[in-house]
Amino acid sequence: MKRIAEVAAQAGIAEEHLELYGKYKGKLAPSLWEELKDRPNGRLVLVTAVNPTPAGEGKTLTTIGLSQALNACGVKTVAALREPSLGPCLGMKGGATGGGRAQIVPADEINLHFTGDIHAVTSAHNLLAAMIDNHLFQGNALGLDPQRIVWKRVMDMNDRSLRSIVTGLGDGNGPVRESGFQITTASEIMAVLCLCSNLADLRERLGRMLVGYDRDGRPVTAEKLGAVDAMTALLKEAVKPNLVQTLEGTPVIVHGGPFANIAHGCSSVIGTRYALKLGDVVVTEAGFGADLGAEKFMDIKCRQAGLAPSAAVLVVTVKSLKYNGGAGKEELYAPNRPALLAGLSNLERHVENLGKFGVPVLVALNHFEGDHPAEVEEVLAACARLGVPAALSRVWAEGGAGGQELAAALMKLLDEGKPAAFAPLYEDELDIPAKITKIVTEIYRGSSVAFSPAAKRSLAMIERLGLNKLQVCMAKTPYSFSDQPRLLGAPEGFTVQVRDITLSLGAGFAVVITGSIVTMPGLPAKPAAEAVHVDENGRIAGLS
Amino acid sequence: MKRIAEVAAQAGIAEEHLELYGKYKGKLAPSLWEELKDRPNGRLVLVTAVNPTPAGEGKTLTTIGLSQALNACGVKTVAALREPSLGPCLGMKGGATGGGRAQIVPADEINLHFTGDIHAVTSAHNLLAAMIDNHLFQGNALGLDPQRIVWKRVMDMNDRSLRSIVTGLGDGNGPVRESGFQITTASEIMAVLCLCSNLADLRERLGRMLVGYDRDGRPVTAEKLGAVDAMTALLKEAVKPNLVQTLEGTPVIVHGGPFANIAHGCSSVIGTRYALKLGDVVVTEAGFGADLGAEKFMDIKCRQAGLAPSAAVLVVTVKSLKYNGGAGKEELYAPNRPALLAGLSNLERHVENLGKFGVPVLVALNHFEGDHPAEVEEVLAACARLGVPAALSRVWAEGGAGGQELAAALMKLLDEGKPAAFAPLYEDELDIPAKITKIVTEIYRGSSVAFSPAAKRSLAMIERLGLNKLQVCMAKTPYSFSDQPRLLGAPEGFTVQVRDITLSLGAGFAVVITGSIVTMPGLPAKPAAEAVHVDENGRIAGLS
Repeated sequence: MKRIAEVAAQAGIAEEHLELYGKYKGKLAPSLWEELKDRPNGRLVLVTAVNPTPAGEGKTLTTIGLSQALNACGVKTVAALREPSLGPCLGMKGGATGGGRAQIVPADEINLHFTGDIHAVTSAHNLLAAMIDNHLFQGNALGLDPQRIVWKRVMDMNDRSLRSIVTGLGDGNGPVRESGFQITTASEIMAVLCLCSNLADLRERLGRMLVGYDRDGRPVTAEKLGAVDAMTALLKEAVKPNLVQTLEGTPVIVHGGPFANIAHGCSSVIGTRYALKLGDVVVTEAGFGADLGAEKFMDIKCRQAGLAPSAAVLVVTVKSLKYNGGAGKEELYAPNRPALLAGLSNLERHVENLGKFGVPVLVALNHFEGDHPAEVEEVLAACARLGVPAALSRVWAEGGAGGQELAAALMKLLDEGKPAAFAPLYEDELDIPAKITKIVTEIYRGSSVAFSPAAKRSLAMIERLGLNKLQVCMAKTPYSFSDQPRLLGAPEGFTVQVRDITLSLGAGFAVVITGSIVTMPGLPAKPAAEAVHVDENGRIAGLS
Repeated sequence: MKRIAEVAAQAGIAEEHLELYGKYKGKLAPSLWEELKDRPNGRLVLVTAVNPTPAGEGKTLTTIGLSQALNACGVKTVAALREPSLGPCLGMKGGATGGGRAQIVPADEINLHFTGDIHAVTSAHNLLAAMIDNHLFQGNALGLDPQRIVWKRVMDMNDRSLRSIVTGLGDGNGPVRESGFQITTASEIMAVLCLCSNLADLRERLGRMLVGYDRDGRPVTAEKLGAVDAMTALLKEAVKPNLVQTLEGTPVIVHGGPFANIAHGCSSVIGTRYALKLGDVVVTEAGFGADLGAEKFMDIKCRQAGLAPSAAVLVVTVKSLKYNGGAGKEELYAPNRPALLAGLSNLERHVENLGKFGVPVLVALNHFEGDHPAEVEEVLAACARLGVPAALSRVWAEGGAGGQELAAALMKLLDEGKPAAFAPLYEDELDIPAKITKIVTEIYRGSSVAFSPAAKRSLAMIERLGLNKLQVCMAKTPYSFSDQPRLLGAPEGFTVQVRDITLSLGAGFAVVITGSIVTMPGLPAKPAAEAVHVDENGRIAGLS
């Protein structure tokens, strides 16, 4: 590992703009922006994937490995990634810093507290929650309806027993009411942090967040609770992007990590903007598959921030295609040509969809040990038939050297392919139901949308509030194009059931809830925490 | 403000042992200990106070100002302080970094997230809580009695509505049970962090912590839940002491901040040990008045760590004496000789008590603007009559220059006075009830101790477990020597009611609960958070 000051210097960042957090992590000061802002932007490349499967596709891995490979062949590249959340690290998923020879480091510190950004979001969120309950306790001057408070509490932990709780029990502890905890990454504040342009914009957005309704049904925003300035103060360091490096010394901005269902699932706008000034190419990623992650990246993040991606890399694995083609979770290692061919339908549709945003696509076939050469060839041949460039990536085993073919294909696409003509999928002027319908029919390929009575009530209220032109953030199962997790491949003709629509007014979107979305994960029978060890010198094992 | 690397260099700390957190905060690496450990220790001075009053005594202020004054007159001094907790900062109390010209800086950052230590305690604590509920959910192989789980959750926020809650509601969210949140500083993990010697000791202590009882009434420790190594990993940075500076550049180690009622209320042992190797004099503080803070400092912290204080500084104010002598909260500015003379009884008893530990005492009369010169003289004259050295301190208004008299008096006491002959108050061999009785009769000056039925049941259980030689940590109102907050001055003849006794086995003490101890504060009608502002450049106002 190089000292982060050295990584920064190589990226052209003067020491005065770097705030160190130990020797290997740093935050980029706002003063740096003043120096960078007039430079031209580099080219933005989104790494996305087919629908996720139990075998894992390797989106973060590919983002890291591709940035290493690009740098290795002389293209000045910066990666922009999301911060891992502690809950999943210690729960089901383990670390989120890549793997093999395509990792960001120091992995353990990034996976644990990192520079404290997520803790700051937790504090700001729970300060507002405490202010709300205290407001009720102290007389409720705003006339808040205790039954219609939508602001919950958050914790960066997988803890199912906090999903639904009753608070305020006991003598003198304030009104008793039902509430619950979400994981911190599901906090609207995380989405706000990732979409804001600067501290002033952050403050404005925090003030707009909806906390509940008064007894007359009027929305009450965070601004009214008197804590928005204190919340902004709590977030003043968190809003600064973090700089780390890959195992090969590539600079990586790791900043923010909102949920990819009830939020938009992308790293911060501020971090991406810095990266675009520092790199000729910026490789970034979005949560889940392209149906959710890429759509929100384009329609929410790029739209709000005025960003225009130059290309998309669609990560696929032999195993993910077989799974999407009907092979069982335990059968993915066995050769299975029929499943592979059937699963290609999933890849094909994602490729088509990305084209609808005017963004050229490159398929990255992420190679796993044990992949059968014939199946690898099959996938590459299928891509050729579809007319989409594709390359094999071996970055897990070989780091940047294993991504040369992918990097070369990307540069060819960027330099010689048809230039991107980015446009979001839907126009701002459409009403929320029309926006939903457009996503469902053009991206998911369902035939229709059905709104539950609760969703209809919410839509009527949103219309009454004059908010029916909001952007939409789809909260849907990631496992299928449809809202039914087991409908794999490329389903058609289904109806998407909208259960409810909630407002994230600070983030600037309406959250469209289909199916049951869990915003507080639980721990499995063998939590990942049980495998974590630390020796007396502080060296951690078992985390990433 | 000097760069922290410069402060460290002046204190003799090589750059390689300093882990920077921005330009003005740093952590001391374990490698430094290897270099320091064979040096002789400096002299340890405890700053304590009379019983706290609504006007504030200025213990932290005096600790900071005295360390500035000592350095100014050529005595190499390091201060060792507790970390402020976010909850009170945003709640009732405001910041905790001193004031006027005796402050530690950067105050806003120390008051907010600092280097993340308290967040790490929160995460480690709540990981264990999540593992416990998950254990119940996954089949309860340990046979835990869900009604007798003593491990709650924590949050660094003042939030009364979380004091008593019901968790696990809703379908598939685990057993429904009563629980609650404490503020993070009340977590046993904070006490453990502050009493441990190193990472290995931390791990052992975490494993010993009691989480509940099984269906046969046997204690179940954290070790059994399988998360102790992960908890240690979460705390591996938090265990390193933090270095900051005063406004005059004096090095200050700010590390740990356990509650002063259900825990021992002192900064970390590790931080104190580093300070004793770096300074010829180390000035530190303990929570609340000397009846609680100094007693626990001597009987718990010094005993466990093998430390021996050389002197104690007892902070008093004209206002605190008048309040202890019966003057009302609103009358403290008006001259009131009778109240002042009556209140001296409180000072006198604390002086006597400190003598029982074999520690020489110096009274620091912390001067407030508006103090009447005649009353100041009265206090100093009374100290002379009592035969205790005393000095006026004007460090709020004048910084180190205003503490010259105090510093000179301290050095005279240390260099020319009768040397300290430190011994804890009670012997290890005494049973818990005998230890409690000794504290109550010799320090509080009550006539007896009464144990509630619950306390008797706990004592019987503790005896059955073979733990009846544990140290005791008194949880009592700080406002009186007795367990009745309104019994001011120097009451006698009262009976202390012990409501319950709980076990902090990781910290190594039994917590003796008298009266009702709130471990989760609430917010007042006008929370301090409402006064906090931050401008677009990230400058904070209204916090400290």
